[in-house]
Amino acid sequence: MELDRIYASIQGDLEKVREKLKSISRVDFPWLAEQLGLVVRGTGKGIRPALTLLSGSFYRYDFDCLLPMAVAVELLHTATLVHDDAIDKASVRRGQPTINSIWGDEIAVLMGDYLFAKAGEFASDTQSPRVIKLFSQTLATISSGEINQFRNAFHLPQAREDYIRRIYGKTASLFSLATQSGAILSQAPEESVAILKDYGDNLGIAFQIVDDILDFTSTAEAMGKPVGSDLTQGTLTLPAMMLIERYPEDNPVKRLFETGDMKNIPLALEMVRNSSIVDDCYRVASEYCERACQSLKRLPENPRRQALIDLAGYIVARSL
Amino acid sequence: MELDRIYASIQGDLEKVREKLKSISRVDFPWLAEQLGLVVRGTGKGIRPALTLLSGSFYRYDFDCLLPMAVAVELLHTATLVHDDAIDKASVRRGQPTINSIWGDEIAVLMGDYLFAKAGEFASDTQSPRVIKLFSQTLATISSGEINQFRNAFHLPQAREDYIRRIYGKTASLFSLATQSGAILSQAPEESVAILKDYGDNLGIAFQIVDDILDFTSTAEAMGKPVGSDLTQGTLTLPAMMLIERYPEDNPVKRLFETGDMKNIPLALEMVRNSSIVDDCYRVASEYCERACQSLKRLPENPRRQALIDLAGYIVARSL
Repeated sequence: MELDRIYASIQGDLEKVREKLKSISRVDFPWLAEQLGLVVRGTGKGIRPALTLLSGSFYRYDFDCLLPMAVAVELLHTATLVHDDAIDKASVRRGQPTINSIWGDEIAVLMGDYLFAKAGEFASDTQSPRVIKLFSQTLATISSGEINQFRNAFHLPQAREDYIRRIYGKTASLFSLATQSGAILSQAPEESVAILKDYGDNLGIAFQIVDDILDFTSTAEAMGKPVGSDLTQGTLTLPAMMLIERYPEDNPVKRLFETGDMKNIPLALEMVRNSSIVDDCYRVASEYCERACQSLKRLPENPRRQALIDLAGYIVARSL
Repeated sequence: MELDRIYASIQGDLEKVREKLKSISRVDFPWLAEQLGLVVRGTGKGIRPALTLLSGSFYRYDFDCLLPMAVAVELLHTATLVHDDAIDKASVRRGQPTINSIWGDEIAVLMGDYLFAKAGEFASDTQSPRVIKLFSQTLATISSGEINQFRNAFHLPQAREDYIRRIYGKTASLFSLATQSGAILSQAPEESVAILKDYGDNLGIAFQIVDDILDFTSTAEAMGKPVGSDLTQGTLTLPAMMLIERYPEDNPVKRLFETGDMKNIPLALEMVRNSSIVDDCYRVASEYCERACQSLKRLPENPRRQALIDLAGYIVARSL
């Protein structure tokens, strides 16, 4: 299903979120405004703000609070990408040159800080101390997760649970913030907040697993960045873990991690693509999606609930 | 006057702030806890948290709110230092090796993000949306100020007002957050919030001017970091500006900025030290301190008001 159809019930409000995001670039510094515009224009599929709006529509839909929160969630996401790219020395993201590649690492660090700050300003516009605290806790989870990922780079062995914990930190925690904050701001009962948290947690894990699969199976053209970048960074993802499990004695991932020889990366990509690993990884992602949708059944049935279910389907089926 | 005597009326509560700051290092990641401990142990003279406590003591002194805010202010300061050191490639701060020098720039960026997040969590514990928003706005001001400073590095000419605007962004905005948040959390009338904002603004500018003087006049031993580091970074501060004003045709700062030849730095330090520039800079700092104290006169007279006045005196007289 197309994203536009899934977003149908919130299309107008999602457009207002995008407008607000663009307004971030109207700041005191003309040259900075231009760069911020570049960052914000590159904004992706809007899944995170859509999650906030949809999750906020089961009880009292309060767009005055949901708007700044949806903006905050997307800005927080953008800020972490700006820092990640600087740390990974990535030169392209979504087909655009990264901030660090144009302006250097220093500006990328400061621009990320600025975007965190703007995200925090929007979060505080919700006037909800609980949501604001959740926002800060999520940033803490993301950054400590990134620290762990960086520290574990090129390390073997790693347990499957470590991987799930890592992707929870870097991706699912933000999905969870998006859904929980929507629920809280709509004055949902605690049970429903918990249901939507559960949905966000599981959906986020599924999303990251698919991302990790695509880093093996997609093309640079489709992704707007090089394939195999996780292996380049020494990040062990599910497809690589499965490869190691199947060929424990000798495999290109092990050789890469032991010797740092990057020639092993295309070999690893090819072995994964030509095996059942891709299907097996999608199966794991689907399981998380099913768990996500399962929890939704306890919410009132309405078009937004269906949209959340369809979004889960889209996430597993997406090719970029 | 000694800081201990100035802090006398809040000594017990300031100690609780320090204890809380230490507790930040008790986190999920043992190795991270150790590093965070290093950062937090290095915490300086506690001027910023002291400002929050003192500013919060004119009306309803509510330590339950002031404690997390004082912690937030100091953590925000620490986080910006961690990022600054990574950006400046500084190897020593307060006599300790910097995070970036031990763990690399990547960990320093992520650790700074983590500290921003923890600061945000504490700020949100005040439960005051106004204070939380001010907190985020301050981070935006600091980071956009740093971006400007970085962009203007090794640029000539720069106007005196640009310098004041720059140091407002990087230092005074945080002093201002410290005093304003204390006032707001003590339910001070708006007029008093404005007075304490004014005090914080001016005190912060004075503080940074003195910092900039010390970078010319102090020793690496006393400062716990190399002298002349502003010039090394291409940052034009008041003493350097005065040197250029006095010798517009030819001077070591101009030669440094034009050619990048670092041999000009010791020459610039010596010329400043052996001139009346140091006194003239201290005079400018004193003027800002006087303005800071002047505004306090409209607050109720009590020992905390005197402490704020004494603190201003300490800041201009301090040698590190």
